[in-house]
Amino acid sequence: MRGFAKRHTVAQALQWLDMQLRTLEPETIPLSTAAGRVLARDVSSDVDVPGFDRATMDGFALVASSTEGAGPYSRLPLIVVGDSMPGRPFDGVVRSGEAVRVMTGAPMPGGADAVLPAEFAEVEDPDGPDGPAKAGHYIAGHYISALGTVSPGKHVGRRGEDITSGTTILERGRTLRAQDIGLLSSVGQGQISVVRRPRVRLAITGNELLPAGTRPAGFQIADANGPMLSALVERDGGVVDFPGLVRDDRQSIVDALHADADIVIVSGGSSVGVEDLAPTLVAEHGELAVHGIAMRPSSPTGLGRLGHRLIFLLPGNPVSSLCAYDFFAGRAIRALGGRATAWPYRSIRAKLNRKISSPVGRLDYARVRLEDGLVEPLAVGGASVLSSTTRADGFVIVEDDSEGFAEGAEVDVWLYD
Amino acid sequence: MRGFAKRHTVAQALQWLDMQLRTLEPETIPLSTAAGRVLARDVSSDVDVPGFDRATMDGFALVASSTEGAGPYSRLPLIVVGDSMPGRPFDGVVRSGEAVRVMTGAPMPGGADAVLPAEFAEVEDPDGPDGPAKAGHYIAGHYISALGTVSPGKHVGRRGEDITSGTTILERGRTLRAQDIGLLSSVGQGQISVVRRPRVRLAITGNELLPAGTRPAGFQIADANGPMLSALVERDGGVVDFPGLVRDDRQSIVDALHADADIVIVSGGSSVGVEDLAPTLVAEHGELAVHGIAMRPSSPTGLGRLGHRLIFLLPGNPVSSLCAYDFFAGRAIRALGGRATAWPYRSIRAKLNRKISSPVGRLDYARVRLEDGLVEPLAVGGASVLSSTTRADGFVIVEDDSEGFAEGAEVDVWLYD
Repeated sequence: MRGFAKRHTVAQALQWLDMQLRTLEPETIPLSTAAGRVLARDVSSDVDVPGFDRATMDGFALVASSTEGAGPYSRLPLIVVGDSMPGRPFDGVVRSGEAVRVMTGAPMPGGADAVLPAEFAEVEDPDGPDGPAKAGHYIAGHYISALGTVSPGKHVGRRGEDITSGTTILERGRTLRAQDIGLLSSVGQGQISVVRRPRVRLAITGNELLPAGTRPAGFQIADANGPMLSALVERDGGVVDFPGLVRDDRQSIVDALHADADIVIVSGGSSVGVEDLAPTLVAEHGELAVHGIAMRPSSPTGLGRLGHRLIFLLPGNPVSSLCAYDFFAGRAIRALGGRATAWPYRSIRAKLNRKISSPVGRLDYARVRLEDGLVEPLAVGGASVLSSTTRADGFVIVEDDSEGFAEGAEVDVWLYD
Repeated sequence: MRGFAKRHTVAQALQWLDMQLRTLEPETIPLSTAAGRVLARDVSSDVDVPGFDRATMDGFALVASSTEGAGPYSRLPLIVVGDSMPGRPFDGVVRSGEAVRVMTGAPMPGGADAVLPAEFAEVEDPDGPDGPAKAGHYIAGHYISALGTVSPGKHVGRRGEDITSGTTILERGRTLRAQDIGLLSSVGQGQISVVRRPRVRLAITGNELLPAGTRPAGFQIADANGPMLSALVERDGGVVDFPGLVRDDRQSIVDALHADADIVIVSGGSSVGVEDLAPTLVAEHGELAVHGIAMRPSSPTGLGRLGHRLIFLLPGNPVSSLCAYDFFAGRAIRALGGRATAWPYRSIRAKLNRKISSPVGRLDYARVRLEDGLVEPLAVGGASVLSSTTRADGFVIVEDDSEGFAEGAEVDVWLYD
């Protein structure tokens, strides 16, 4: 029942951790579930998109030179020889003086090299004001008048203008955005190779705990870490396995440490007391590489391995749990999933309205509010005061070689959302 | 087959839209699924957290005055009368000169008002170096020596220090973060009242379309909008109903417009051609409030209602679809779901390395890349070139009262991720 003989620095802990981090293997999933996933391989297209020249305006496909000299006061007649609709092309060839009605996206008819927009064409109406032409049914054989000119290529989208067959359209490591999903679909990729999501087993220990959502009573408290860590793991792209609370006994913890998972996060019992079983058990069954870190909160944090599994021992206090998760476990989950290791928080620069002190040799995680653009450090209790992280807008890190920041100093604030 | 007689401005379209937007009713869901959801009601706690005074360090609970005068060279003996573990309190009362071994989180024993940290206590070892005390089993009746002093209240977390019964812990409208979920759990809230997620029916029309993920062939193209819009709707908190492509015929579209949904998004056939059925059908069966918007791309966009449903008619061109979604449909989905209407994109200020021109009277959505901190407008084809939005890092908006930006001008760039 002593303190840690020697604490690792955060940098030392991260150095060990980063040596362990390898992106997981790829898996193939349906495109419809791929948004937000990380591409495992470069994707190239083996088709042109579009696969044919097409109209980019509603109007009339024609030989551009047929419109030469046309204008509002020098209308040129053109005979409509058919139409081309998206997916339903005109199957003849357009000659000089002819036009094919086209809708946006329709294949360009053979022979045509431009589209005269509908605004520059007027329908001649042999059937009177209520005839079929007026109603929009431009029957082949009717005439239109061109009221303007177009040059070759005008309002034509060329085959391959979006994507040329053989080009790489998205690179490995990319987190797929909505438009990427659209693009992959447009080249016919119904199945996508993405980095497998890390499986993360949560082992929440503490005989004083009641399951999440239970009303606390007597000397029992309701588990906050299980649901909080579940949400964090999912945010970082992991798949949570949280089968319920784990009893504080050797066998239950050993079983959890051997879970079928890439990462095991043990919450609680991570310190050096006799009842803190997890560190000893990790050391016995695997490797306890780091135990005790010079930071506040989260000092009683442990990092290790057991077989292929990365093990994170997080303190039971919920603020410590959040902080240690963000520094270590979250980083590993993101890295295994092929994501950037950096925090998923935005940061801004702003001035402190009150100093933050911190001893040299220890990194501090100070929760802060933003008040009128200034950074207000929260006067918080200990690591057990979870509401300090819900009242806070974010946090400021005081590195271990710093004594803190003076009032008025400009600092980086990491915003919780 | 004419252009729009008159286009609405984006501001006019948004004005109409914003009048329609009401936050949906609450629904009650399990806490475990509540991360990222929006609270429908203020949540207050009806318990204190913690519900009892507790130790915040491993050590010995005692009457603080028992340590008076203790120091490394003036060790004070204390008799250990029992222990208090988390969830397993000591049930006696501590008197002066006595100590109860405590673990972090353990209930403070009656009579004790401070915790002497383990580092400031040394175990006297009547049983020799291998006796039970050395092994960590501090049997009641053994002695420890205090090597330092503590003042009353030291290392004690007071009942209610995290949350006091009766206080509001989270306010309605809040998007729940991981730590909020932990906090809700700690006060025993297993069920949470959140804003219902809007149900969004996607009606992707176009007889030229093949289902998403199909290899395009001949004059058919693969649907890009269905999967892209699905991902966007989910990003914005909506629930997607996308039962497959909708044929370009009146009945199929009418059926889709009457879907059991809060919002219907029709993709394709949104312009003024004869084959553009959706606008006419919305006007016939409901209200077509806005049709044709002075923006590029996405000019052929329509907004309307049909019964309780908000209807969005998006152009089939995928860039137009993305842009019109972001301006109108996404805004509505976020608002119905109780979220901020603002874009979910971060923006930064940066300088243009090339001018952007745009006619007055039209809003432009210009895709850009960031190159060495400068904003490079992409030389893009038309609204059908979806790859322009995957090559881009984001976009710049040129408002309709602007002619654009000169080279070197500082602009807001909205980042796609």
